[in-house]
Amino acid sequence: MEAFEAFASAACRYTTVRVRTQLPTDFVDITDRVQALVNGSGLGAGLVNVQSLHTTVAIVVNENEPLLLTDFATFLERTSPAQADYRHDDLSVRTVNLTADERINGHAHCRALVLPSSACLNIVDGRLRLGRWQRVFLVELDGPREREISIMLMGESGR
Amino acid sequence: MEAFEAFASAACRYTTVRVRTQLPTDFVDITDRVQALVNGSGLGAGLVNVQSLHTTVAIVVNENEPLLLTDFATFLERTSPAQADYRHDDLSVRTVNLTADERINGHAHCRALVLPSSACLNIVDGRLRLGRWQRVFLVELDGPREREISIMLMGESGR
Amino acid sequence: MEAFEAFASAACRYTTVRVRTQLPTDFVDITDRVQALVNGSGLGAGLVNVQSLHTTVAIVVNENEPLLLTDFATFLERTSPAQADYRHDDLSVRTVNLTADERINGHAHCRALVLPSSACLNIVDGRLRLGRWQRVFLVELDGPREREISIMLMGESGR
Repeated sequence: MEAFEAFASAACRYTTVRVRTQLPTDFVDITDRVQALVNGSGLGAGLVNVQSLHTTVAIVVNENEPLLLTDFATFLERTSPAQADYRHDDLSVRTVNLTADERINGHAHCRALVLPSSACLNIVDGRLRLGRWQRVFLVELDGPREREISIMLMGESGR
Repeated sequence: MEAFEAFASAACRYTTVRVRTQLPTDFVDITDRVQALVNGSGLGAGLVNVQSLHTTVAIVVNENEPLLLTDFATFLERTSPAQADYRHDDLSVRTVNLTADERINGHAHCRALVLPSSACLNIVDGRLRLGRWQRVFLVELDGPREREISIMLMGESGR
Repeated sequence: MEAFEAFASAACRYTTVRVRTQLPTDFVDITDRVQALVNGSGLGAGLVNVQSLHTTVAIVVNENEPLLLTDFATFLERTSPAQADYRHDDLSVRTVNLTADERINGHAHCRALVLPSSACLNIVDGRLRLGRWQRVFLVELDGPREREISIMLMGESGR
């Protein structure tokens, strides 16, 4: 196990990243953007936490193979069908958190329930530590929309 | 991207929080308690890790709309019905981890399997960084009971 | 809430751990290995992030009761059957990320989608902070294979 010197030059760095999604269910590969933030941070070791700021957006780590992403969409539709009945969408009885442009999205919330809302990833040797096939995705569950994620990097400077 | 000064005044702060749940499946909004700990920590930037200390309690981030919470309960019941057969609950063959007040809770463990056991959230400008509709929930899957969660805050002091 | 002194002696420590899985779906209890790394790190408080380096390996926290682990395997098979059709496995049309020893594993990716790819756990009093029944598992979804996980520890030295 490698040990870094005391946190003499350690730091927190953070930013908000905007992502435009294109589909109702969309997997947007944000790996390169996260990697660029790690590179630009000057951190040699630590953690980067990629956090959704929405209740119908998840952050997952999986493989970026286009057919697999259609399998994921099929899987999510099977677990929480878009056309099923959700009490959240019954605007005749609901009284809480209503907006002028309320969306019919109970299915999207249920899908979000079983997907991670953030990914906490290791930084090693100044780079995002990922396996060969691992990519970081923003998962849009109720799009298309403009979305935001919060990224926090914390650790030890230098390599 | 904002950068903080070196961790001259950085710190870890932690505590254990107790929560009394009221229902077999219960969503307890703990956002204000986590926010109060962030406020009281004096940290300006960093991470807060909200960790379940139970195998049938999850920590999720989603919207606090009462009808949606009933949708979540319906969804969880569909994925792992309480009345289905679980070998974990077959006390005629099981020999491991048995207690005097053993609960019939295979369904609760299966539900916990697909829900996060912790939420790692960003601290920015001295506050929990959350989107407009995001709330932090302790999800009781085998209640009602007295539960505990461990909360760790780590980061840079000051704003 | 306890507060540690400034990060005068704080550090990041990290390593890669190898795990040999034995079954197509396998739950390998890695708690003692993670605990040993925490003990050896000299950290008194902080975080340990246990991260999968594979897209068909998850990291979960749950109870280590052998019959329950068979319930989990049954549950995963029900949510994403191994024998169902996945476009990821249709090598007559797929063109991306193909390898010489391509595996038929669409089901494993779908299962990984709803399981956490990492566990971020608290370190308190120099030990992994876990509840009575909580154990950390590497979950093999497409084995048996040799697997790797990345472990990052960050925090304040000493107790």
